[in-house]
Amino acid sequence: MNQAINELLPSYQHIVLASRPKGQVIAENFRIETQIGLSASNLSNGEVLVKNQFLSLDPYMRGRMSLAKSYAPPQALNEPMLGATAGVVIASKHANFRVGDSVVGHLGWSEIGRAAGREFRKVDASIIPLSAYLGVLGMPGVTAWYGVNMILQAQAGKTLVISAASGAVGSIVGQLAKLIGCRVVGIAGGAQKCAYVVDHLGFDACVDYKECVDDAALLAALTAVTPHGIDFLFENVGSHIFDASLALLNPFARIALCGMIAGYSGTAQPLKHSNKLLTMRANLQGFIITEHMDIWPRALTELTALVSTQRLKYRETISHGLASAPAAFIGLLAGKNFGKQIVQL
Amino acid sequence: MNQAINELLPSYQHIVLASRPKGQVIAENFRIETQIGLSASNLSNGEVLVKNQFLSLDPYMRGRMSLAKSYAPPQALNEPMLGATAGVVIASKHANFRVGDSVVGHLGWSEIGRAAGREFRKVDASIIPLSAYLGVLGMPGVTAWYGVNMILQAQAGKTLVISAASGAVGSIVGQLAKLIGCRVVGIAGGAQKCAYVVDHLGFDACVDYKECVDDAALLAALTAVTPHGIDFLFENVGSHIFDASLALLNPFARIALCGMIAGYSGTAQPLKHSNKLLTMRANLQGFIITEHMDIWPRALTELTALVSTQRLKYRETISHGLASAPAAFIGLLAGKNFGKQIVQL
Repeated sequence: MNQAINELLPSYQHIVLASRPKGQVIAENFRIETQIGLSASNLSNGEVLVKNQFLSLDPYMRGRMSLAKSYAPPQALNEPMLGATAGVVIASKHANFRVGDSVVGHLGWSEIGRAAGREFRKVDASIIPLSAYLGVLGMPGVTAWYGVNMILQAQAGKTLVISAASGAVGSIVGQLAKLIGCRVVGIAGGAQKCAYVVDHLGFDACVDYKECVDDAALLAALTAVTPHGIDFLFENVGSHIFDASLALLNPFARIALCGMIAGYSGTAQPLKHSNKLLTMRANLQGFIITEHMDIWPRALTELTALVSTQRLKYRETISHGLASAPAAFIGLLAGKNFGKQIVQL
Repeated sequence: MNQAINELLPSYQHIVLASRPKGQVIAENFRIETQIGLSASNLSNGEVLVKNQFLSLDPYMRGRMSLAKSYAPPQALNEPMLGATAGVVIASKHANFRVGDSVVGHLGWSEIGRAAGREFRKVDASIIPLSAYLGVLGMPGVTAWYGVNMILQAQAGKTLVISAASGAVGSIVGQLAKLIGCRVVGIAGGAQKCAYVVDHLGFDACVDYKECVDDAALLAALTAVTPHGIDFLFENVGSHIFDASLALLNPFARIALCGMIAGYSGTAQPLKHSNKLLTMRANLQGFIITEHMDIWPRALTELTALVSTQRLKYRETISHGLASAPAAFIGLLAGKNFGKQIVQL
C-alpha cells in the first residue's frame, strides 16, 4: 500500500457540466478540463486512488442534467459529470485494496479519481472483462433482474414486451424472461437491432418502430406479434412506444416502469391508452435500482452465474478516450448505441 | 313463502339498451318497454321475486354500453340495462327469503325482477335507509374502503387527493382518509360541491376545476393546497385532472386508479406528466371492486359501524320513476349528481 505514482500522472482530465441543456443535449453542455495530478500523497486514510479504464454512460444521466425535481439531486454545474466507472487501483490507504486491484465505483467522467474504499466494489476481471461490471454485472443488469423478478414476477407461458430491447437493460430483460419461459417481444429502432435480439439473443419477435409510419402502424405491428396480448411490460422508452403497449395489455398486466428516454429532453408524452391501466386492472411500478441495494448481492450472484456459463449474452458500444464521452452520450440518447454504452480510456 | 301477488302487477316496465352511444350517451340509446307481469307462479325453486324500490346508477355502466374490451363483457343490445338494485321481496321460493324482506341485488333497470336467492343480500333497512345499501354500504362504499386501505394504505400525516370528490366514491374516500389522519384534498366541479366536501365532510381543501381556466391554473390551484405534495391519489376522473395530480406526486406515491370518467365517451386522455410515475417511483393499481369479493364482509362491517355512529356521512341525488333513469344517467356522466345517484321507483 501507499505506493506513489506521482511521476506517472502529472495531470489528468475530466469533463464537467458546463451548462444545462435546453431540450436536446449538445456538445457545448460539456467542458473538458485538465487537473493537477493526484497521487498517494493526496489520499486520506481509508481512501483509494483509481485510474479509470471504463466510464459508464447511462440514460439516467440526462435527468441529472436538468433542475426538474426527480429521484436524485441535479448534477452541479462546473462539477465533473457523475457516473459509474471501472478501473484499477493505483494507490491505496485502505487495507482491503491493493495497487492493481480491479474496482467498480462512481468516479464520474474523469481519467482518475479517489474515494473512500467503501465506495468501491472489488471485482474479478480475470474471467469476465472489467467493462461488463458496468453493464450486465452492474446497474443495468441488476435493473433488468429486479424488474423481471421482483416487479413483473414474470411467469412461463406469458407474453413479456420490452422497449429499447437491444439496450443495456432491455437485452438482459429479454434473455432473463426467455430463461423463465416467457414469450418475449422486443421493440427497437432499426432492422439491425431487431435482428440482433431475435437471432442472437433468442427473443421471439421484435418490432422495428422506425419502420412504422405512424402510431396506428406501430400498434398493428405490435399486435401482430402479441397474439395473446401483453402480460408483462418492461418499459424503457415512454411516449408513443409505451402507449402502443398499453393498448394491448391483458387483464392484471404488470408494468415495470424503468425509463422514459423519449421524454428526457422535455418532450410531452401523451398516453392515449392510459384508460387501459384501469380497464385491465394493471399494476405499474416506477423504480430506481439504487433504492433496492438489498437485492444487489442476490442479483449479481445469479447474473454472474449466467454470464459465466454463456447463458446470458451482452454487447457493448465502446467509444475511445475521455473526449469522446459527450458525443457518445448524445448518441445514446438518440438510440445510436447497441447494448451497453461504454467509454474506454 | 309462495305468496302470489299476480293481481297487483299485471305488467311492469324495464329499460333496455336500444343502441350503443357514439361518443356522448343520449336518451335515444335507451328504450322503455312494458312486460307481462311476473308472479310467484313464474318462479323456479330457489328463486325470489323482488319489487325494486331503488336503482343504482354508476359510471361503470358507460363502459358496458360500448363494445371496447374491458373488464366485463358489453351490455347486450335490446336487453335490460344491468345494474344494482334495492327492493322488497314480493314472492319467494327460497327458504332464506320471506315476502317483505329488504334485499340488494342486480336486477337492472326494471321495476321488478327475479333471480336465485343466492344473488341477493338481505339487508336491515330499519335503521339505515334501504338506498344506502347501493351507495355507502354497497359497491361505492366498498370501493372507497378498498382503495384507501388496501391499495393506498393511507397513513396519518400524509396528503391524499381525490378527484370527483363529492361523488358516491370520492366522498367516502375523503372521510375514511380523514379518520385515518390524512390531509385530504378534493377536486370537484363547482363551488357548491367544494363547499360541501370541506364544510360538511371535513376535507381540508377542495379545488374547483371549473374555476380553472386552463391546465396551468388547475395545477397552480392544486399546488396551493398540497404544500407537501401528494402521497396518495385516489383517481376517479382521468384526463387533465389526473395529470395535474401526477405533476405533484411525492416520491413513492401510491395511486388507486378507480375510474376515468373523463374518457368514458372516447375522449383521448393525454397525460403530460406520465414521467412522474417513473421519477417519483410511483405505484399505480387499477382495480374493480367486484374482483375482491373476499374483502366485502370486512369492509361492510366497518362501513356500517361508521354510518351507524354518524362518523361517515353520505348524500344522494335521487330521480323519480323508471323513466327518469336515462336522463339521470346522462347527468351522472356530466357530473350533475351530488353524491350517490339513485333512481327511486
